Formats: sequence, structure tokens, C-alpha cells
Amino acid sequence: MKKLINDPARVVEESLEGFGLAHADVVTVHPDPLYVVRADAPVRDKVGLVSGGGSGHEPLHVGFVGRGMLDAAVPGPVFTSPTPDPVAAATVAANGGRGVLHVVKNYTGDVLNFETAAELADAEGVEVRTVVVNDDVAVEDSLYTAGRRGVAGTLAVEKIAGAAAERGDDLAAVADIAERVVANVRSMGVALEACTVPHAGTPSFELTEDEIEVGIGIHGEPGRHRRAMAPADEITEMLTNPVADDLGLAAGDDVLLLVNGMGGTPVSELYVVYRHARRLLESRGARVTRSLVGSYVTSLEMQGASVTVLRLDAETTALWDAPVHTVALRW
Amino acid sequence: MKKLINDPARVVEESLEGFGLAHADVVTVHPDPLYVVRADAPVRDKVGLVSGGGSGHEPLHVGFVGRGMLDAAVPGPVFTSPTPDPVAAATVAANGGRGVLHVVKNYTGDVLNFETAAELADAEGVEVRTVVVNDDVAVEDSLYTAGRRGVAGTLAVEKIAGAAAERGDDLAAVADIAERVVANVRSMGVALEACTVPHAGTPSFELTEDEIEVGIGIHGEPGRHRRAMAPADEITEMLTNPVADDLGLAAGDDVLLLVNGMGGTPVSELYVVYRHARRLLESRGARVTRSLVGSYVTSLEMQGASVTVLRLDAETTALWDAPVHTVALRW
Repeated sequence: MKKLINDPARVVEESLEGFGLAHADVVTVHPDPLYVVRADAPVRDKVGLVSGGGSGHEPLHVGFVGRGMLDAAVPGPVFTSPTPDPVAAATVAANGGRGVLHVVKNYTGDVLNFETAAELADAEGVEVRTVVVNDDVAVEDSLYTAGRRGVAGTLAVEKIAGAAAERGDDLAAVADIAERVVANVRSMGVALEACTVPHAGTPSFELTEDEIEVGIGIHGEPGRHRRAMAPADEITEMLTNPVADDLGLAAGDDVLLLVNGMGGTPVSELYVVYRHARRLLESRGARVTRSLVGSYVTSLEMQGASVTVLRLDAETTALWDAPVHTVALRW
Repeated sequence: MKKLINDPARVVEESLEGFGLAHADVVTVHPDPLYVVRADAPVRDKVGLVSGGGSGHEPLHVGFVGRGMLDAAVPGPVFTSPTPDPVAAATVAANGGRGVLHVVKNYTGDVLNFETAAELADAEGVEVRTVVVNDDVAVEDSLYTAGRRGVAGTLAVEKIAGAAAERGDDLAAVADIAERVVANVRSMGVALEACTVPHAGTPSFELTEDEIEVGIGIHGEPGRHRRAMAPADEITEMLTNPVADDLGLAAGDDVLLLVNGMGGTPVSELYVVYRHARRLLESRGARVTRSLVGSYVTSLEMQGASVTVLRLDAETTALWDAPVHTVALRW
């Protein structure tokens, strides 16, 4: 294992220390308990948005803290859920007096720990609503999940619900918008090469020189099947068609197409995937009206990509377009 | 070799086709000869900025085309200079009537081809000035270079000169600002793992499980030395100290610190490097007043990072802060 780290046990803290120093205009890193908040938190009379989960998926979630998106993010150890205490502390720190929405990726540990944190925050007088993201169409239940996993679609939930909170929606309305995004977003990923968790020291799984894992999870959980390497267009079809089918994509639908890198994939390859995924969606009569291409929901240095499709309406399009000022998304 | 590509001979074209589809609001991809221009090019009465070079370093340069930065970028084949014809065509397309600045990384092929392109553009009535970027302190001459190589510091030249052009500076003034950035920027990189050029099919070089290459070039050219893997802080010192020494960094200097990923390195590791690089600069009495952390000047999926330090003054700071609207940099 060769990584630009010092002590594997301190990699999350050291990385966040650098993150806080580099971006003090946008975020504040609270060291103990460990969470990241908007530099101007709490924002009075705004619903707060809090997310989090295991580290190793950066820029998710810490890179999405800032105006128009998250008020706080809680990073656990690599690929391991944060405990309830920091989540509760972040929830209180994010509360501007109108309650807090928890955006939780559907993994058993995350769901349980955010639930306990919501109870702790409630005891401190903070009203909490929760939305669970489960956009991965690859498998129903998996290694760490009852039901579908939450993956790159989480970015869209955080962006759009964050914009709703920013324009002044109340907690129920922000939660409704978030649920509407969850209902309309689907994803699927592929791995070409595994990643290595620092404290483990060896790759999470092994693929031979000619193998890929279709339907990979963002922690390296098994997907639908292993198969032989194939040209990008063929792989893009393996990802895009199940996503479009599951979404019930229809002619005339407007969609956001997100092609996401898993951390170790050159952005040039993501555009090769985007090109064909767009063509596939258009061949079904859909219109790709918004696009995002880059490594946003990663698995350390895993090589691979995922395709996410979000069916848009006029309101979610406007909320997607609304200004955002975070480290990783800014417009 | 496992890559998300179809035909290795068509990877640049297919990737740029996707890039153009995804970002039609910002750029137009001109297919033959192949170059990328601002969607609103040419911008009347503004000095044009054109850069380019071998592909494989994305988002450099195509991701830096847009308001406040480049007017056009010319991508060659992977790690291979573009020929003079597309550079000349892009130069004409970028000319708004006040001439064009060529920003050229110091590689023999790029320097020669941009020189010929400048003559061709001149024959069409476009005045061209050229600035050559040579920020890499690792080696004096190298595999593809007489003199130092141009690496991640190129981003700073393009951003700051682009802002000078945007505010209305004339060609001589934009060239002067660009030269001032070149004079004040230094970089050095390290590789943990090599990358594979698609048409070659095998890694550019080999590092054992415990080896790193200090002073690596962005095409995998040899650096200063190979040595055993070390903790991130120690590697950060190997990069930052030569950069600061060569720059003659003095107490009281204001600097931009750019920690750049080579393509296959998780952003979390870049922040571990940033944290210690910043500390090293501050221990010399410098103030890190601007920061950028991410994979901006890459070598396909190479694992590693580079440290770039730019000495700032009031004017270059203001130009760095000026609005920019490109695919890869936006504020």
C-alpha cells in the first residue's frame, strides 16, 4: 500500500485539518467531536441540512458544506458510520431555529446512528426530519444494507434540498423536496480496480487484469456480477439501461445526467462514458437538460465510474441551478 | 490495461465529444482541426488567450476555457504536442481584434509547434505573443525539454493572465502579467504509481511496492531520484522545500499554495499534503493567502501529487480572485 498519508489511524483527522485550513472562508472543522460546519453556521431562520457517513467518499459530504447545500457534514472513520454523538452535535450546530433535515445514505449503520442522533438532538429541542437516499439500482439488499444502497444520487438530494432550505422553505417542505429527488434518482456503478482502506492495508477485493465488477458499491461491496472487460460504450450500456429502466424513463422526460468517477479514474474517461450515456438516454426520447461530470462520490482511489439519472421538473431544475458555494460545487 | 475507453486511437476525440455535449453553455468543440473555444468566441476587443499541449492532463487545458481564463485550448494526442495547424486555427478563432497570447508549457515539441502556429496566425493578421511556463524545479533538462518543464504552475499563469485580458489589458500588458507569474511560480511532483498511455497499453515506467519517484514529470519523465516510500509529511518536505528554496521564499511573502493531484490520488490525501506544505511555508514566515487543492494538471490515472507555490502581490492576488467561469475552475 502506497498512500500519501502518515498514520493510518489519523488519516481522517489530518485530511480534515488541511481541508479546514484551505477553506476557512467556507467551512469550520470542529475537531472533537469531529464535524464540519458552514463558517457562518448556524444560519438564523433557515432549515439546517446535515449529512455524513464513512469517510473515503470525498468530496462527499464535507466538500458539499456551504451556502446553498449542507450546513454540516459528519465524517466517520474510512468506510465506517460516524457515531451518534458527533451527528447530534453537528445537528445542534446546524440548527438556525427552524429544524434540521438529515440526509442519510441507506446503510444500516448510518440509518441507526442518525436515528439515535435525531433523538439526542430532539432532547435538546431541535426538530429533525430524515430522508434516506437509496438510489443504487444494482442490488436490493447488500453487505451493509437492507434495501438499496445510497450512492452518487445523494449529491442531487443535497444540492436541491439545500437550495430549498436556502430560499426559506420550512422543514416539511425541504423534506418533501428531498423525498421527491429520492423518488426520481437512480444510479449504478462499475469498478475496474479496487481501492485499499488505509487501516486494512490490502485491496478490498481483487479483480484480474481482464475483470470488472458491474454494480459495485461505494465501499467495494459486490455488485450484480463480475465479467470480462469491455469497451466503454458497452460498459456504459450496462450502467445506463438498468438506471433508465428502473426510473421508468419516458419520452419527453427532462433529466440531469451525472457521470461520477470513483476516485482513480481520469476525467477524460468520464466524458467518454458521458457521451454514450447521453446518447442512450436521448434514444429513449429523454432530454439531458443538466449535466455534471467529475469525481464527486468516490471510493478512495478505486477505478471506475457510476451513472446517475435524475428526472427533473421545473422546480427541481430551478433548485439545481440556484447558486451554491461549497468547496466541491460552486456556481 | 483496463480503461473506460473504446478505441485507443479515438480516445481524445470521443472524450472531447462528451465534453462539448456536457458543457455547451461554456465551450464549443471544433472537431477538425480539433480545438476547444469559448462558446462566445471571439470576444471583441479582448486579448485572446490560447494554450494547449498533449492530452492526458485534463482538466488542463480544455477545462480552463471560458470567461476569465482561456479563449481556446488545443489538445494534441495523449502526451503528444498538437501540430501547428490546429493551434493556428484556434488562435484565429480566439482573436477578438487585439491579438492573442500563447501560453506554452516548456516542452520541445510544444514550443516548436506553437512557434510555427504563431507565424501562420501572423500571416492571417493576428498578432501573437508567447509566454513559456517552466515552473518545475525538479530537473534542469529532461526527456522532452531543454530547460525546466512546465507543470501545474501553468494553471496560475492561465488564470491570472486570463483575468488581465478580461479586464481589458492590451497584449503587451497581458504578456507582462503572465511573465510575472512565471517568474514567481515553482512546482515539484512525486509519483507513487505510473500511468498507462492508451495506445501504448503498458505503464510508462514501473515502481515497486515500496518505491516512489521524486521530481516526476507530468508525462512520467524521470525526476530527481527514486527512493523508498515514506510518510506523507516527509514526502511533502521533499517537494515543498526545493520549491520554496528555488523561489527564494522570504518571511512576509504572500503565496498561493496549490496541491495538485496527478489523476489517481484521492482528494483526501491531497489535503494531508496541503496541511504539512502550508505548515512548512509558514515556518519560513510566508503567509498562505490563497489555496487550491484538487486534480487540475494530471497524468491520466497516475498516483501522486505536486506542490506549487506562487508568490503573490496585490495585483496578481486581485486577478486570481477575479470571476472565472470555466468547466474546471469557477468562482
